Amino acid sequence: MSSDIKNVLLKIRPYIHKTPVFTSVQLNEISGAQLFFKCENFQKMGAFKMRGASNAVLHLSAEQLKKGVATHSSGNFAQALSLAAKKMNTKAYIVMPSNAPKIKKDAVKGYGGIITESGNSQAEREEALKKVVAETGATFIHPYNDIHVIKGQATAAYELLEETGPLDYIFSPVGGGGLISGTCLAVLELSPATRVIGGEPMGADDAWQSLQTGKIIPSTQPATIADGLRTSLGDITFPIIQKNVAEIIRVEEAEIISAMRLIWERMKIIIEPSSAVPFAAVLKNKEQFSGKKVGIILSGGNVDLAALPF
Amino acid sequence: MSSDIKNVLLKIRPYIHKTPVFTSVQLNEISGAQLFFKCENFQKMGAFKMRGASNAVLHLSAEQLKKGVATHSSGNFAQALSLAAKKMNTKAYIVMPSNAPKIKKDAVKGYGGIITESGNSQAEREEALKKVVAETGATFIHPYNDIHVIKGQATAAYELLEETGPLDYIFSPVGGGGLISGTCLAVLELSPATRVIGGEPMGADDAWQSLQTGKIIPSTQPATIADGLRTSLGDITFPIIQKNVAEIIRVEEAEIISAMRLIWERMKIIIEPSSAVPFAAVLKNKEQFSGKKVGIILSGGNVDLAALPF
Repeated sequence: MSSDIKNVLLKIRPYIHKTPVFTSVQLNEISGAQLFFKCENFQKMGAFKMRGASNAVLHLSAEQLKKGVATHSSGNFAQALSLAAKKMNTKAYIVMPSNAPKIKKDAVKGYGGIITESGNSQAEREEALKKVVAETGATFIHPYNDIHVIKGQATAAYELLEETGPLDYIFSPVGGGGLISGTCLAVLELSPATRVIGGEPMGADDAWQSLQTGKIIPSTQPATIADGLRTSLGDITFPIIQKNVAEIIRVEEAEIISAMRLIWERMKIIIEPSSAVPFAAVLKNKEQFSGKKVGIILSGGNVDLAALPF
Repeated sequence: MSSDIKNVLLKIRPYIHKTPVFTSVQLNEISGAQLFFKCENFQKMGAFKMRGASNAVLHLSAEQLKKGVATHSSGNFAQALSLAAKKMNTKAYIVMPSNAPKIKKDAVKGYGGIITESGNSQAEREEALKKVVAETGATFIHPYNDIHVIKGQATAAYELLEETGPLDYIFSPVGGGGLISGTCLAVLELSPATRVIGGEPMGADDAWQSLQTGKIIPSTQPATIADGLRTSLGDITFPIIQKNVAEIIRVEEAEIISAMRLIWERMKIIIEPSSAVPFAAVLKNKEQFSGKKVGIILSGGNVDLAALPF
């Protein structure tokens, strides 16, 4: 068996936390399943994205490192790339829409990222990124549609499986598909019988639609509190998902908020709405997972406490 | 050296979680100290009180166990005694003021406690308790002024010191004094050079006043968000505190809320306001703790998410 993801994990180890796996007697009782929560909300900068960003930066040449990295993101990847770049003594140029919340801009600056503001449309963001890359010579790192990023994200599920042994299922949220396609690679390497299931908001179910139609359906006008899951799949993540994901379960907004609240109240940990989607999916289809060993990747914990849904 | 607390820990081990010790690079940077957070918010029923309640119930005779235990509490001890009694196959009679929040009554019922409602004054609560004890023959367990309860609470600091080795300081919040006097006993047994410091809200500084005057000053009209710290010291907890606590540092309400928010945002864990008081005290006197190894007992995580201060 290949040990591809294991090697990635060994390489990024100095830059990331080995996050704990939590269990909860109460949530096992409520769900009927035996749940193992991989707590990436405790990851550096508060989300699994640190894994992929670290691996991507580690793959740059000395020449590339001199000039830095660039990306467009208003979310966790912007912070992750900024922090990874800082740790590896290079620069991170981050294109963010001018209407991004101040709290997110401040976080990027706090990790040393250099922000360029752009218009809010996808086209304007890409245009601004092109300009930054042309001016600086920085290497563009895509937030998820990049094989090194995907393999970095894979290490979360890899660590989980190393700790729990074989699981019946592993759940991941689905946004651009970086985490879930990485999860598939980890499962292939360590526990091929484990079925990978995606959780997706009904209001941003482009991955579910893509699987139904067999081609990438872009996420247009996504409407969900799970702000990490509004993006579209990429041409690298989609084929991995298509081939390896057993199922995508869609959940309503009220189910996401209720699952998030349950985890906050019973487990005493802070997770962001996107992280609650897989647990909401388990609760929605209880019979399917009754008595099964189920891993859930809690993807992150970056929440604005001033704007909670409860 | 005596191994009193170690023996208590071995006895209550089947009934409690060994909670993790968390560290945070960010909070170390902010405080200037090297902080070790003992996460009793992850304890069974969400607070350290489970330790003391378990030890108290374990000390009952077979005859006493037949008749059950009783206490008056509207807080975490009510839940802890209910759960400990359930686990040891006995009954818990809990006197709660009729104006206690429904969420707390429901929690006690959820753990199998049998609630008797009383009036809201201390006298009415004690009267109702006397009646319950007379009718049922249950053994009264005081929430903190009880040596078995105190020794049970001591196991939190004991586990912390076992994991970290000697610390310069250990902080505990001060309410009735059960946790901090237990902390003193653990320190005496395992790391006598460690100084124990209490954190107390300025609006409920009866322990600070008691140390100043050399006698127990009751907590009258306490005004603080830290609802676990509104109680008065007892005649068992006070002498231990008087002899062994190095200092009590008082903090303002805004400092408590700010410290609580920092822990939520940076550590991604949920703690109740009382738990934030010691960290607020460290931040208030930064110079004193700069470069020191400081243990902080995060006492609990039972918060009403519908009534957050931010």
